[in-house]
Amino acid sequence: MESLSAQVLAALLERDETVACAESLTGGSLAVVLTAAPGSSATVRGGVVSYATEVKRELLGVTADMVVSGECAEQMAEGVRSRLGATWGVSTTGVAGPDTQEGQPVGTVFVGVAGPGVTRVRRLALTGNREAIRAATVTAALESLADALA
Amino acid sequence: MESLSAQVLAALLERDETVACAESLTGGSLAVVLTAAPGSSATVRGGVVSYATEVKRELLGVTADMVVSGECAEQMAEGVRSRLGATWGVSTTGVAGPDTQEGQPVGTVFVGVAGPGVTRVRRLALTGNREAIRAATVTAALESLADALA
Repeated sequence: MESLSAQVLAALLERDETVACAESLTGGSLAVVLTAAPGSSATVRGGVVSYATEVKRELLGVTADMVVSGECAEQMAEGVRSRLGATWGVSTTGVAGPDTQEGQPVGTVFVGVAGPGVTRVRRLALTGNREAIRAATVTAALESLADALA
Repeated sequence: MESLSAQVLAALLERDETVACAESLTGGSLAVVLTAAPGSSATVRGGVVSYATEVKRELLGVTADMVVSGECAEQMAEGVRSRLGATWGVSTTGVAGPDTQEGQPVGTVFVGVAGPGVTRVRRLALTGNREAIRAATVTAALESLADALA
């Protein structure tokens, strides 16, 4: 996870671009990984942990009815990109468990990436406990950003 | 750290109150700890990782000149409390290193707590590497909130 994060930060620095994250189920873990390295402040604008649905709506401008959805992931990535003035926005939303949510099984996760002229969403079906699902989501979000930058 | 977090969440649940965090040097670690437990969504509204100074100003309403200051910690805690509609706001700002910032040595950290009729700031002089300083800051922030709730 650290090397993936280092790779993404190096690519952003090279391009003189920045990133911001909007996180639901990962609760800040993506921002933690991105800001772990010294010097990350040149590249990481920050993030919003939109745990409550109203925070998704008010701070990120999400209008999607369902928060466990690709539409929500898309709007979170676009919202954080625009609100925090970053080149790229990355988002996570889904069900970490132990309970299902909006009728979706535990492990249903969407990660979004929004950048100049591009918005992408990936749907994941993850297994494992809450901690494992959160960790796998962070990796998938970093991979999605790395792909978009490639 | 987990037991301190569990204690804080139990106290909030008991009082039917909520919390939101505004983080600078901890980069989301405080939100991660608070949202690690299942069921935390009843109590944790979310947070803002205000890594860039403009994010502190625009999303949290910080006006303090210095970001490594008690005034900034206070405004971050009050700002996130009000913007995210939480009963309590908790904040972290300071120097995780390896470089000094605003003339302040590495390990200079301020944690803030804002709640109904109360705003408190604690100044810390921490030692260790970047990771150790971030971890000790999260613990101090949780302790400050636990104190305010006691």
